[in-house]
Amino acid sequence: MSKTVKTVDLSHTAGLYYGPATISSGKVLHIAGQPGNTKDGHVPKDYESQIHLCLFNLRKLIIAAGADIKDIAKLNVYIVDYDVNNRKHARPLQRFFGKHRPAQTLVPVPKLAVPEWLIEIDAIVALPEPSLPPVLPAASENADVIVIGAGLAGLTAALDVIQSGLSCIILEARDRVGGKTWSQQTYDGKGHIDVGAGWLNDTNQSRVWAIAKRYGAEVIVQNTQGKAVLENWEGNVFSFEYGEVPNFDEETRKNVTEIRDMCEAECQQLDTWRPRNTELDAMTFEAFLRSRGASKAAMGTATVWTRAMLGVEPCDISALYFLNYCKSGGGLLIMRSDRKDGGQYLRVRGGTQTLSKGLASSLPEGVLRLETPVQSIVQEQGGSLKVQAGGAVYSATKVITTLPGPALKNISFYPPLPPAKRAWTESLYYGYYTKAMMEFKTPFWVERGFCGLANSFIGPAGVIRDSCIPQDNKYVLTCFMGGEPGRAWAALSTPEREKTLLEQIGKLYGVSNVEDQFLKMTAYEWVHDEYAGLGCPCTTLPPGVLDTLGGDGLRAPVGNLHFAGTETAGEWKGYMEGAVRSGSRAAAEAVKDLNGPITARL
Amino acid sequence: MSKTVKTVDLSHTAGLYYGPATISSGKVLHIAGQPGNTKDGHVPKDYESQIHLCLFNLRKLIIAAGADIKDIAKLNVYIVDYDVNNRKHARPLQRFFGKHRPAQTLVPVPKLAVPEWLIEIDAIVALPEPSLPPVLPAASENADVIVIGAGLAGLTAALDVIQSGLSCIILEARDRVGGKTWSQQTYDGKGHIDVGAGWLNDTNQSRVWAIAKRYGAEVIVQNTQGKAVLENWEGNVFSFEYGEVPNFDEETRKNVTEIRDMCEAECQQLDTWRPRNTELDAMTFEAFLRSRGASKAAMGTATVWTRAMLGVEPCDISALYFLNYCKSGGGLLIMRSDRKDGGQYLRVRGGTQTLSKGLASSLPEGVLRLETPVQSIVQEQGGSLKVQAGGAVYSATKVITTLPGPALKNISFYPPLPPAKRAWTESLYYGYYTKAMMEFKTPFWVERGFCGLANSFIGPAGVIRDSCIPQDNKYVLTCFMGGEPGRAWAALSTPEREKTLLEQIGKLYGVSNVEDQFLKMTAYEWVHDEYAGLGCPCTTLPPGVLDTLGGDGLRAPVGNLHFAGTETAGEWKGYMEGAVRSGSRAAAEAVKDLNGPITARL
Repeated sequence: MSKTVKTVDLSHTAGLYYGPATISSGKVLHIAGQPGNTKDGHVPKDYESQIHLCLFNLRKLIIAAGADIKDIAKLNVYIVDYDVNNRKHARPLQRFFGKHRPAQTLVPVPKLAVPEWLIEIDAIVALPEPSLPPVLPAASENADVIVIGAGLAGLTAALDVIQSGLSCIILEARDRVGGKTWSQQTYDGKGHIDVGAGWLNDTNQSRVWAIAKRYGAEVIVQNTQGKAVLENWEGNVFSFEYGEVPNFDEETRKNVTEIRDMCEAECQQLDTWRPRNTELDAMTFEAFLRSRGASKAAMGTATVWTRAMLGVEPCDISALYFLNYCKSGGGLLIMRSDRKDGGQYLRVRGGTQTLSKGLASSLPEGVLRLETPVQSIVQEQGGSLKVQAGGAVYSATKVITTLPGPALKNISFYPPLPPAKRAWTESLYYGYYTKAMMEFKTPFWVERGFCGLANSFIGPAGVIRDSCIPQDNKYVLTCFMGGEPGRAWAALSTPEREKTLLEQIGKLYGVSNVEDQFLKMTAYEWVHDEYAGLGCPCTTLPPGVLDTLGGDGLRAPVGNLHFAGTETAGEWKGYMEGAVRSGSRAAAEAVKDLNGPITARL
Repeated sequence: MSKTVKTVDLSHTAGLYYGPATISSGKVLHIAGQPGNTKDGHVPKDYESQIHLCLFNLRKLIIAAGADIKDIAKLNVYIVDYDVNNRKHARPLQRFFGKHRPAQTLVPVPKLAVPEWLIEIDAIVALPEPSLPPVLPAASENADVIVIGAGLAGLTAALDVIQSGLSCIILEARDRVGGKTWSQQTYDGKGHIDVGAGWLNDTNQSRVWAIAKRYGAEVIVQNTQGKAVLENWEGNVFSFEYGEVPNFDEETRKNVTEIRDMCEAECQQLDTWRPRNTELDAMTFEAFLRSRGASKAAMGTATVWTRAMLGVEPCDISALYFLNYCKSGGGLLIMRSDRKDGGQYLRVRGGTQTLSKGLASSLPEGVLRLETPVQSIVQEQGGSLKVQAGGAVYSATKVITTLPGPALKNISFYPPLPPAKRAWTESLYYGYYTKAMMEFKTPFWVERGFCGLANSFIGPAGVIRDSCIPQDNKYVLTCFMGGEPGRAWAALSTPEREKTLLEQIGKLYGVSNVEDQFLKMTAYEWVHDEYAGLGCPCTTLPPGVLDTLGGDGLRAPVGNLHFAGTETAGEWKGYMEGAVRSGSRAAAEAVKDLNGPITARL
């Protein structure tokens, strides 16, 4: 498709997130000033939440007109009580634009049309020509169901399809199975390190646990014996008992406990599959915490959660989305827990990719096609689908995609995905999230009475967890870099990244010679992995989307196209368990349609 | 080229400098809000300077996109602390638009994105279709070098080219040689009056002096014997010794002296050919004077300078450009001086056109083509040029244009001039500047002890100079009408113009019966002369251009196209000397390229 909007660049402005000028061609969409309200007109009190809603209102109109963010030619941003030292619009706008650089004018105003409105944006958007159906050659292969992606979701879906008696082909872009389960080797090649998913449990994660058992995975119980540590905003380090609230002063301790318990209680109210709460979805998690009286320490604690769980800051995410994400894993406390029933209770000695490899080994010959990235999906008049991938064309009655929302951008759909689905998938985004596994000669933290768990308000690592494999004499601390401190760390060279992490580890566990113990840092940046949609572990949503589109919208089928992947899960979103369950759910949808209700077959 | 933007007119708004609505067609350029900053982000403190920079930022983007001022469809002008009684944006905007009338909305705002910004403008511009190469017939004549314009610059260039052994053709639009040297006759037809360039000297203007001597010009020393007069803001007249500061009160006198000496010192700091000073180029000359503490009288004095030298108000011109213009003539004091070494030391009895006619008489037969205006210049793939002029096509290896920047608009260039050259030539503009030569029966001012020099803060004439030819018994006062009082005078009928000037002359020299002495007014309005680019004596620049494009940009060649004319001169810009030097400089560039270095020819 030819470009509808081109940024005119003068070298001295190339560093800005918007352009000095754009050239647009074709039909033009003129968007009226959009305030930051929900679809029912609810206006959150705070400026930041309004920005997110305002941008989602823009997005909805752009999608409804058949255009895209990259078609925006010009925006005017009207801001009440504009403060140059508090440019909270810049960050969400920058993410909204992505790599596109439209022209923009910021207009401070004394007020807007409605007294509650604090921001309003209008826009000029160039409309692309409607895309024509691609002319695909005849299919060279056919299956009842084509599954896109050979991670845990895709492998599970394929096995379920095959078990129901239908034929299946899996198209996988990579040269390996596993998706975000990917196990690499330790320093000496004699142990495994998970650069992707690492933890599971044996109770409420019944599906992934069954797979682990089926393929003989040997598990390691997460170490929670000994003290945990906290590094506060000022860089002071406290140790405290695992599972307790750190030793802030009494008032702070009380506030942190209250905020934690309030979040737990609020998330337990939600319907995991179809969360609804306009007020909660209209505000960011930060605005929510502030409205509930969070102290600085409580805000820091909550920031540790959003960074370590999704790689985002509390100001980036819908309060409803975050609370529901917690609820999907049984609640905030269970999802954060490293003990029995918790999200981080067990690890796999041979690496979690063992599970994916196991599932793949159960597939009949010829089902799995590696190195076959999908380029386009065409739903034909009769409802059947053609999938163009890796130079060949496949036909199927059903397609199950397991790709994360942002990765769907790599595929051309014809007809284009319907507006509600586009609004969902294009609103999903990844924060910054990287794990670095720091391998040491000895478990010096254990020797000093620490279990290895550390939280930090300032980073670079926001959370650190013990990831030792005692059976293999492997001593590893997994450092989670998420959100803004993660981005700052990512900007460093590899030696600097190692150095800053070692310094932080030395400080947290009170060890001066940590470099002497150090063997190797292993990290993989999913943020550069195109097939993962440029991120991990799970996408997130800004305010407004859930309320407008409903909790089921992402997983709802489009004709004979079905949607799986851990972000579509009702339970354990972002975890292996969510991926497995989503695969089964999508397979069941497809199989039900194809085989019909059992009564009908009698 | 078809019009991209058409103003929708309603009779009741026809008097505005912008239109009520426009219709645009084609691709659209959307320009982000442009503040009034330099290319490095420097923001001058005053509002007026910011307006000029803001407009230049707009111009750069319009040119970069391949569009033109006349393609602007709509502007929004955001102004902080807008005051209806101080609409300082209107004047520069009006000049920026020229005859084009885009739609415009003025939006007063409490502040802008950056606290220092006081104005911001965004725009919608219709993009013209890229121009196709014109299809020219085969050339009927060929020369090594074609020179455009037979003024002093063009004639000098042609003679230099011919002297180097190369062939040359001069294409002149008018039916005469001389360009802005143009001598007419006195009342009785027995003397000469220069309606264009009038003064030279015999020391630091060595090139033009050599021409004057070569062609036997008889010179007249400017009369500076006797008293000069000043008319102040209140219309009171003081007489004072030529060369002294007028008899203001002591404090004012001190301030006027200080400001004059400061300007002299500042201009002496500059590199005439490549002036660089971001701070000075970011502000208008008026803002510069105000920042240096100029009193009302000092401002009036400086206004006399800018009006008499360039026909502009101090608020219209970059401080750097004005100071550098002075420096090009040896400094403010020398350029303003009517004595030995000064800009106005000598006149030519037979008129300065004598010099041009002399040079033309030295040309070989067939070189000069009068009444041959150039329509288009095409640089072909191999680098050679075709020039379409007066119905014929000429080919050449080099073209030297001597036209003032604004006159280049009359020529179609293919390929179009590069953006930096366009930004230069399109930013150049003329102020209002007309000389009226008032011929009298007697030199009554001399008889009353005046040398004839008068300065006025209020006009209509800002400066008056004796232009007598005693040998011919011709008694003339040359009145210089520049800037705003000049425009007001130009709006009068011819009898009213004569009347107001005679009244002013009577008042300045204390003569009641001046009408009885009056013979004839001779004036030529270069502001209506298309071939001069609608002005004289020299173009000027608003803030921002020199800083962005550098001092050499105007004279830099574009392929085999070279640029001469007095405005391109390093020394004595706006004078005959500058024209002659620029012609030699451009000829040397062309000859060097064509003949190669001398060593290579041995």
